[in-house]
Amino acid sequence: MNHTFNPTHYFTTLGWHEPVLTVADGDSISTTTVDARGFDSSGQNVTERGNPMTGPFYIEGAEPGDMLQVTLDSIRPNRDYGWTRKVVAPNVVDPEYVRQLPDDQETINWQIDPVASTATAELPGHTPDKIVTSLAPMLGCFGVAPPGRQSISTATSGPMGGNMDYRGFVSGVTCYFPVFAKGALFHLGDGHAAQGCGEIVGTGIEISMDVQVTFNVLKEKQSAWPRGENVDYIFTAGNARPLDQCVQHATTEMLKWLQQDYGFDALAANMLLGQCVEYDLGNIFDPAYTMVCKVPKKYLN
Amino acid sequence: MNHTFNPTHYFTTLGWHEPVLTVADGDSISTTTVDARGFDSSGQNVTERGNPMTGPFYIEGAEPGDMLQVTLDSIRPNRDYGWTRKVVAPNVVDPEYVRQLPDDQETINWQIDPVASTATAELPGHTPDKIVTSLAPMLGCFGVAPPGRQSISTATSGPMGGNMDYRGFVSGVTCYFPVFAKGALFHLGDGHAAQGCGEIVGTGIEISMDVQVTFNVLKEKQSAWPRGENVDYIFTAGNARPLDQCVQHATTEMLKWLQQDYGFDALAANMLLGQCVEYDLGNIFDPAYTMVCKVPKKYLN
Amino acid sequence: MNHTFNPTHYFTTLGWHEPVLTVADGDSISTTTVDARGFDSSGQNVTERGNPMTGPFYIEGAEPGDMLQVTLDSIRPNRDYGWTRKVVAPNVVDPEYVRQLPDDQETINWQIDPVASTATAELPGHTPDKIVTSLAPMLGCFGVAPPGRQSISTATSGPMGGNMDYRGFVSGVTCYFPVFAKGALFHLGDGHAAQGCGEIVGTGIEISMDVQVTFNVLKEKQSAWPRGENVDYIFTAGNARPLDQCVQHATTEMLKWLQQDYGFDALAANMLLGQCVEYDLGNIFDPAYTMVCKVPKKYLN
Amino acid sequence: MNHTFNPTHYFTTLGWHEPVLTVADGDSISTTTVDARGFDSSGQNVTERGNPMTGPFYIEGAEPGDMLQVTLDSIRPNRDYGWTRKVVAPNVVDPEYVRQLPDDQETINWQIDPVASTATAELPGHTPDKIVTSLAPMLGCFGVAPPGRQSISTATSGPMGGNMDYRGFVSGVTCYFPVFAKGALFHLGDGHAAQGCGEIVGTGIEISMDVQVTFNVLKEKQSAWPRGENVDYIFTAGNARPLDQCVQHATTEMLKWLQQDYGFDALAANMLLGQCVEYDLGNIFDPAYTMVCKVPKKYLN
Repeated sequence: MNHTFNPTHYFTTLGWHEPVLTVADGDSISTTTVDARGFDSSGQNVTERGNPMTGPFYIEGAEPGDMLQVTLDSIRPNRDYGWTRKVVAPNVVDPEYVRQLPDDQETINWQIDPVASTATAELPGHTPDKIVTSLAPMLGCFGVAPPGRQSISTATSGPMGGNMDYRGFVSGVTCYFPVFAKGALFHLGDGHAAQGCGEIVGTGIEISMDVQVTFNVLKEKQSAWPRGENVDYIFTAGNARPLDQCVQHATTEMLKWLQQDYGFDALAANMLLGQCVEYDLGNIFDPAYTMVCKVPKKYLN
Repeated sequence: MNHTFNPTHYFTTLGWHEPVLTVADGDSISTTTVDARGFDSSGQNVTERGNPMTGPFYIEGAEPGDMLQVTLDSIRPNRDYGWTRKVVAPNVVDPEYVRQLPDDQETINWQIDPVASTATAELPGHTPDKIVTSLAPMLGCFGVAPPGRQSISTATSGPMGGNMDYRGFVSGVTCYFPVFAKGALFHLGDGHAAQGCGEIVGTGIEISMDVQVTFNVLKEKQSAWPRGENVDYIFTAGNARPLDQCVQHATTEMLKWLQQDYGFDALAANMLLGQCVEYDLGNIFDPAYTMVCKVPKKYLN
Repeated sequence: MNHTFNPTHYFTTLGWHEPVLTVADGDSISTTTVDARGFDSSGQNVTERGNPMTGPFYIEGAEPGDMLQVTLDSIRPNRDYGWTRKVVAPNVVDPEYVRQLPDDQETINWQIDPVASTATAELPGHTPDKIVTSLAPMLGCFGVAPPGRQSISTATSGPMGGNMDYRGFVSGVTCYFPVFAKGALFHLGDGHAAQGCGEIVGTGIEISMDVQVTFNVLKEKQSAWPRGENVDYIFTAGNARPLDQCVQHATTEMLKWLQQDYGFDALAANMLLGQCVEYDLGNIFDPAYTMVCKVPKKYLN
Repeated sequence: MNHTFNPTHYFTTLGWHEPVLTVADGDSISTTTVDARGFDSSGQNVTERGNPMTGPFYIEGAEPGDMLQVTLDSIRPNRDYGWTRKVVAPNVVDPEYVRQLPDDQETINWQIDPVASTATAELPGHTPDKIVTSLAPMLGCFGVAPPGRQSISTATSGPMGGNMDYRGFVSGVTCYFPVFAKGALFHLGDGHAAQGCGEIVGTGIEISMDVQVTFNVLKEKQSAWPRGENVDYIFTAGNARPLDQCVQHATTEMLKWLQQDYGFDALAANMLLGQCVEYDLGNIFDPAYTMVCKVPKKYLN
C-alpha cells in the first residue's frame, strides 16, 4: 500500500517521538521534506532550522533487534532553487590555512534546471563567474530512533543513521538500519540537489524534496551500523570521529555482513576486502563524520 | 631520450643517496622494480625486504623549489605471481573486534593471468575456495628525496611522496612532486598487481615490475604535496595521521592548485570543491595514511 | 536551604526529563547515587545499568544562556566495596597488542577501607596477589540537560557535561555548566571511589555515594564547555574524539575564560597558556573522550 | 670518566652521522647546546636553525637491540634570555576559532633571573603588561639514531626519541632508549628554560644550555619507545598522531615494562594501570605529538 503523507510538524532530533503515521510492513510512503532551514517547496519557512525531519513513521512489526529495510524509491527536488554555504569548513583545511579562507559566511542560491539536470550558482565579479554542477539528488539525514530512548540532534549521526550526508544515498538505493525502538520510528529530511564528497562547505545544495520510500521489516537480520546497496555495490556506513574510526566501524560491519549473508568464511572475507574493497568519504563536516565501505557485487554471486 | 637501467642495489629509505643514473629534463627511463620483500622477476631474493627502491635518479636542472613532473608511462608485472597478507590489519577494524580476526600472519601467492587480466588466490578448505580479482597494476612507493637531508623509511610517506599505496597510481598517470634536493633524486618501487582501497591487509598483490617513467622539470611551479592527473581528474595526495589530517593537506593543496593553474579565484575554488570534490582513500595501513582529493577535469575550463 | 532527596527512579540519559525536585538559586541538595550498574548503598539492584542518574533537579531562575555553578560539597562512598573491570580497553593499546591483553571480561570487587583510605582488590594466584590504591572519591557522570531538547546517553559527554570520568571532580571542586533548558535540569551519578587517569579499563572503582551539591545561577556568565576550579587551578573540560579535539575545545574555552573573567587581553592570554598551561587526561574510554586544560591560580591576579 | 665536549658543528636530523666523540659505557659528557635557532650562550648564531643537535656521541658497547640509559645529570641555561612564540598554534584551538587568534608571528624575549628562578616577558600596552613564570629547565629534543639508517628531522620524534618537547625531561631524570645503530649515536639539544604542557605556542622558552649526561649500556633490556624515571614515577613516551595513538604506544610500553622489570603478571599490570596510571601531555605541536604514561613508584614493590 502507498500512503501519501503531508507533514504538519517536524523534529530536529531523531528520537522516540510520537509517530505521525503507522504503516504496515511492505508499505510505501510518498511525502515531502523541507530544506535544512525549514523552507518548503514554495519557499515558505514552515519550521525551525536544523535539518527538520519528516516523520517519524511507525512500521508495524518492527521490534528492537530487527533490521529495517528502507528503499529510497524516489528523491526529487520540488522547487527551482537550492542554497549552499560558500567556503570550505575550517576543519577541512590545514589549521595554518584557515586565515586564508575567504571570510564569507553568507549562503548563495543555486538555480535548478531539471531539463538540463544542472544546478548553477552565479558569482558576479569572480573568476569564473558561475559554477555549474550536475543534479544528483540525495537525502542527507534519515534514520531510525536511537537506542536507549535517546533523542539525538539531526546535526549528527550514529548507529541509527542520521545526518550522514553521504552523496550515495540517491534514488534506487536500498538501506538497512538496526531497529532500537518498537516500530523503528523512521525520520527523513535534509535533501540535497547535489553535494560534493565530504560536504566540505557544510552543506550540499539544500532543497525541499518529494520523496517516496518503501519499508520492509527483516526479522532474522541484525546489523550494528547502517547498510545499503545499489546496482553495483553493497556498502556499510560508519559514523564517528576521526575518519579512522568511521573506517573501523564500516569495515567491521562489512566483515560481518559478508559472513552473515554472502557465504564467506572469515578468512575469505578478509582476503576479499584486502584486494577488492573501496571506500567513500560521506562527510567530514558534521559532529560525527561518515565513511562508507563498499564491495562490488560482481565479487558476490 | 630513453634510458634503460638495470638496478644493482636498492634503498629502503627515500634519501639524499648517491644517484644511480643522471638523466636530462625530458628523458625517460625503462627499469625494473623488485617486490616489497626484495624479490625480482625471476623470483630471486636480490636485496633486503622493506619496499626496496630502484634509483635514485638525478634529473638535470631540478633544483629545490621546482616541481618534478613524472609520467608513469608503463607499469607492468614481470612475473606470474604476487603475494599478499590475508587478514585486515588490527588498526582498520573496531578495537573490540581485533580478537575475532583470523590469526593468520602467513602470506599467500596469487597467480597472475595476463590474458584474462586477473589475479587468483586459491583458498582450499575455505568458502569460497578462491578469490579472483582484476589486474590493475600500480606503484605503491615512489617519490623524491625529502627536505632537510632526511632519509625516511619507505614504509611511510610525506610531502616527498613515498609509500602512499594509492591504487590510482597506474600507467598513464602524471605525477608532480616538490623538489627538495638538487637533481630531485627520484626513487620508485613497491609494485602491486592490484590493491584494494586503503591497502587494509597491509599489502597489495606484491610483485616485481617493468616500469617506464618520463621526467620533466617545471621551473615555475611549486607544490607542498604530491599532485597528479589522469584522463578524468586532477588530484592531490595528503600523507599523515589521522585520515582527517590527510584530507586537510590534500584539500588545502587543491585549493592552491585551482588558484595557481586553473584560473579560479579563492571563492570560486571553494565553491567548486564544495559541490564537486571527490576523495579516495589511498592507504590506512602505513605509518602515514593517504587521502586523495580529486576534481573532475570537466569542471576545469 | 539544604534539601534531602531520596531518589525513587533514575535516568540513563541526560535529557529534558520531568524534574524530581525544584530548588532555589543558592540551595543545596543532599542525596545518593547508585553505582554504574544501578546498585545502591545496601548492594541492592534498584534500577537498570548504564550510569543511572539521580535527578534531574530544577534550579529556579536558571535559563538558557546562563551558567550554572555546582559546588561538589561532599562525595562519600556509602558502602564498603566497589567494582572495576580488569583489563585495559582495546582502544587504549596498540592495535597489534590487543590479542595479548588478558581475555578476562569479568569484574572484580575492591574492599573499601575508609580508615586507611584505601581500596584493595585481591588477586589470588597472580603476581602481585593484590592491588591497593588510595581512595579519591569522584563523580564520573554529571551535568545539565543538553541543547535542542536532546536526550543523550550517560555513556558519553558533551558541552552539557555527562560522562567525563575525570578524576579531578572530587569534593571541594566548583563546576560551571552552560544552561540549555529552563531550570538547567541537573543530573548526577556514576561515583568512583578512585580511578586512574583516563579510565583505561573502562571503569573506576564503581560505587554508590552520598553526595551533597550546592547550586548557584550566574546570570551574566556564559560558557561553551564545562569549567571548574579547585584550590590550585581553574580548568576547562573538552569532550570529543580524538583527544586532539578535546584539547582544542578545552584550550579555546580557557582562552575565552581568561579574557572574560581574569583581565587578560588576547595576546597575554595566549602567552600565559604557552608557558604555564597544564593538561589532564580525563577519559580515553567513553564514546567522547575528555581532556582538561588547567591554569594555576597563582598566575591569575 | 667525565668528558668535556665543545661542539663545532650541529645536525638538524637524528641520523647515522659520523660521531663527534666516542665514550665508554658509564662515562659522562659535559657539553653545551645551542637554542632552537642555532644561537649559543653568547647570543651568537653559530649554526642553521631547526633544533640543531650537539653530537652524536658514540657509546662503546651499545649495539642494536640493547637499551641505552641516559641520565640527565644537569641542564642549566647558560645565558640570560630565552625566546618564545606568542600565540597558541592553530591546531590547538577549535578550527572556527583560528581567525580570532592574535595575528602575531613575532617571537619575544624572556629575561632569565637565575636567583629568583623566573623568566619574564614584558608586554607593554597589554593586560597584564608582563608574564612571569618559574624556571624549569628541560631538554626538548634528544635521542638516538633511528632504525633502518634513517635520518629524521629534529622537528619530530619517534621510537628513537627526538623532539618530544616533554616538560618532564629535567635534571635528575633517567631516560632509556632502544638502540638501533652501533654506538647508539646520541644527540641532544633544544633546551627550554621552561615550557607549558603541550608546547602549545610551538616553543618553550628557547635557550642555550650547559648540559651533563651520563651513559650506561643495558645489554639485557629492550624497549620499543623511550622510557624514563624520576624520583616519584616511572614513565613511557609515545610519539605519534593523533594523541590517541601516543596513548596507545605509551600504555602498551608501560604494560610490557611492568611485566619485564617489576614482577607484575599481565592481569595485575592491567589492574594496576586501570586505577593508578597517570598521563602527561608532552607536546601537541610537533609533527609527532607526545603523550607520557606514568606509574607512581610507590605502587612498585
